[in-house]
Amino acid sequence: MNDISRDLDPTLIDRFATIVGDRYALRDQQDIAPYLTERRGLWHGRTALVLRPGSVEEVSRIMQLASETGTPIVPQSGNTGLVGGQMPDRSGREVVLSLSRLNRIREIDVLSNTVTVEAGVILQTLQEAADAADRLFPLSLAAQGSCQIGGNLSSNAGGTGVLAYGNARELCLGVEVVLPTGEVFDDLRKLKKDNTGYDLKNLFVGAEGTLGVITAAVLKLFPKPKGREVAFVGMSSPEAALSLFSLAMDRAGAALTAFELIGQRPYDFTLAHAGVVRPLAEDWPWYVLMQISSGRSAEDARALIEEVLSEGLEQEIIGDAAIAASIAQGDAFWSFREVLPDQQKPEGASIKHDISVPVASIPSFIEKAAGAVQSVSPGARVVCFGHMGDGNLHYNISRPVDGDDVAFLGLYHAMNQAVHDVVRSFHGSISAEHGIGQLKRDELIATAPPMAIELMRKVKAAFDPAGIMNPGKVI
Amino acid sequence: MNDISRDLDPTLIDRFATIVGDRYALRDQQDIAPYLTERRGLWHGRTALVLRPGSVEEVSRIMQLASETGTPIVPQSGNTGLVGGQMPDRSGREVVLSLSRLNRIREIDVLSNTVTVEAGVILQTLQEAADAADRLFPLSLAAQGSCQIGGNLSSNAGGTGVLAYGNARELCLGVEVVLPTGEVFDDLRKLKKDNTGYDLKNLFVGAEGTLGVITAAVLKLFPKPKGREVAFVGMSSPEAALSLFSLAMDRAGAALTAFELIGQRPYDFTLAHAGVVRPLAEDWPWYVLMQISSGRSAEDARALIEEVLSEGLEQEIIGDAAIAASIAQGDAFWSFREVLPDQQKPEGASIKHDISVPVASIPSFIEKAAGAVQSVSPGARVVCFGHMGDGNLHYNISRPVDGDDVAFLGLYHAMNQAVHDVVRSFHGSISAEHGIGQLKRDELIATAPPMAIELMRKVKAAFDPAGIMNPGKVI
Repeated sequence: MNDISRDLDPTLIDRFATIVGDRYALRDQQDIAPYLTERRGLWHGRTALVLRPGSVEEVSRIMQLASETGTPIVPQSGNTGLVGGQMPDRSGREVVLSLSRLNRIREIDVLSNTVTVEAGVILQTLQEAADAADRLFPLSLAAQGSCQIGGNLSSNAGGTGVLAYGNARELCLGVEVVLPTGEVFDDLRKLKKDNTGYDLKNLFVGAEGTLGVITAAVLKLFPKPKGREVAFVGMSSPEAALSLFSLAMDRAGAALTAFELIGQRPYDFTLAHAGVVRPLAEDWPWYVLMQISSGRSAEDARALIEEVLSEGLEQEIIGDAAIAASIAQGDAFWSFREVLPDQQKPEGASIKHDISVPVASIPSFIEKAAGAVQSVSPGARVVCFGHMGDGNLHYNISRPVDGDDVAFLGLYHAMNQAVHDVVRSFHGSISAEHGIGQLKRDELIATAPPMAIELMRKVKAAFDPAGIMNPGKVI
Repeated sequence: MNDISRDLDPTLIDRFATIVGDRYALRDQQDIAPYLTERRGLWHGRTALVLRPGSVEEVSRIMQLASETGTPIVPQSGNTGLVGGQMPDRSGREVVLSLSRLNRIREIDVLSNTVTVEAGVILQTLQEAADAADRLFPLSLAAQGSCQIGGNLSSNAGGTGVLAYGNARELCLGVEVVLPTGEVFDDLRKLKKDNTGYDLKNLFVGAEGTLGVITAAVLKLFPKPKGREVAFVGMSSPEAALSLFSLAMDRAGAALTAFELIGQRPYDFTLAHAGVVRPLAEDWPWYVLMQISSGRSAEDARALIEEVLSEGLEQEIIGDAAIAASIAQGDAFWSFREVLPDQQKPEGASIKHDISVPVASIPSFIEKAAGAVQSVSPGARVVCFGHMGDGNLHYNISRPVDGDDVAFLGLYHAMNQAVHDVVRSFHGSISAEHGIGQLKRDELIATAPPMAIELMRKVKAAFDPAGIMNPGKVI
């Protein structure tokens, strides 16, 4: 392991280290290890150097040197990405650029409803700062305690708040980006409207660090809801869930702030393995976790959710529903949803998908995909849940009950292809919110319209002709 | 005039005409005139040929031929643009490509809340089709009776609905684009979430036809509000208007669907010249046209607007307010706002600006800009109104009462520079919603951060290396 520094010229390492200071240039593999280790254990990159700059100026000098010397740079924020976008390759030649020390909230402007924030700020820290200013920053996802804003933007993060507030891209008004040359593109503007040329901001957002390094951003804030009601609802089918979604949209509109679908299997897994309280007395084939937020009052949110649910019962769309009786119970419902993705592990090997289709196609997708799964692995168990209101499902597959983990994982590509073929038949996306990274790069290139790939390659070549920005990712 | 065809090789004209058929290849200058005439009379381009293709296939063949022969193409939709983006230059060498025959609404999907629509559909036609399907398409602007969706997207149109629903970019889920080569980039997807590579869609949206020709798009629909209340409010200052905006956002949040600021001068001009009914009995230095929409009921909208206004009166933020007593009166309030921009004409020459600043900076901007205006033209009359909730003002200047039109227009560039310097001091935008076109191209290039211009040029060169797509526009 210690030999890895041989892959990078020691003089070059010293030159990089001088920029950030020795303390923030990690060369010891023990210090480096946390930057190469991620939760799923899927990616095993190598590096001789992790740089932890403390200012945009330092990031700029790092990129300048990288540009001069043709050194590949892998930007990394909270290291919670699920597709390997934040990991260097196995060559040892790539330098990891950690943004975590750029962690200032530069300004909260409550009148303009904006916050200017650096890339290394932890999402939850930002949520709390907004809350303290009587505002809501609505981006919310499982990793929020450790993921950072730079990564959220670079991966155009989704999560449970997208339905009412949009994904990371829609929450971003301006960016500050260090380009591969080291030049700083300062577009930190608080403007809701600005039609002065091409939309460069949205190229950097979602580019997974392959076009430049996002160092700061202006993000939108919202009025804090005055009331929030959460309900757990049981129903017979995805069609019923879709009808409930239509009904809730019709009655609550923008006040409908979450609509999460949960299949019976992930529900049962969570009850079995997570030690949580059963949200509904009876079992149902499908469940929805629904949240309604009111800008007016707690009573108003309550009246609205009761109206939707009683109408749903009356129309026989839903079978049963429990409205959280307290904030604690509401948190418990959400906690059920949050711990749910991890409860597949005790059931053995799994193959996961992060797909989206038009909302109206969700029921047909679920039906067709189930057939595709069985054709690849008879007895495999579909574990389906996700952000139904956005058309986004985490369509995961656990091995058959008596199946063999290794044998099942051998079906990885066949299963991906079978499920993604169904996705494509609905003009859907094979990566709704997790991005492409290393995981889906080959598949993207093989299956996206050739014209899209060609245009993306043109953008990449125009912005990073030397190919030093996070190589081997996305495109 | 008839000699203009000499600028384009007649054989080439014939080849283009063959693609669309003679009937749809306009060569007669009388037939062509409407395509070269726009409302403000600012742009006087020339062309020997207007092509009116009837299918995407024909657009593709036109661009293929243009690409082979290096013929510049100027895409045009409803010809309502305010910055000359839709106009050919004076050379006569540029061919106008009208999208108006691509006017099908291909599909309305009420469950997914999407509409798939061609570039030549008139905005109002789309609004009506959505309405008939019990949905709202919220893009709304003065030219809606004649502007077309392709132009709305290419210019990232704004208007009065941006506050609650976003601009054209935010309403667009997918695009179909004919590239300069004639290849078709089909990205007509109905997905709210799709993280499969770079955001190409948002490059084409707002590019004013300089990167490709948008031929169709998937747009978002929304639940139709069940109640709508409009109020005309009088107050003493922009600070008071800002306080009212904060109050209304706090109480109504996403239900606040319009917040238009109107200065006393445009208000008085409208009363004097438009023959409209006076909205408020007394005069005020500033006015706000506010709309609150409820997804629940008419009563609910009424209660909400009454709450905001009575609180505003109680806190002495506002001086007077009239809530429209009927749909007709609400329409009259809106009509007042819609005819307002045209009432500057009888007051003599004017110099107009379409700016945005952070919402919180609106009062300071108004104060500083007034000083700048007086330093350029003592006695010049500021005519300030706009979409305050978006930080976007139409900050127009009429010549002094006894001034001379020609002398005043001689100050055009000095006035632009003085006002835009103030805009830049607030990190604002010199084109919030109208775009760059020909009008602001030189200024954009001269005053934008050089890095932004360089990146835009890279994008342009990557997508349109031969420079045949709407040359001389934007960049």
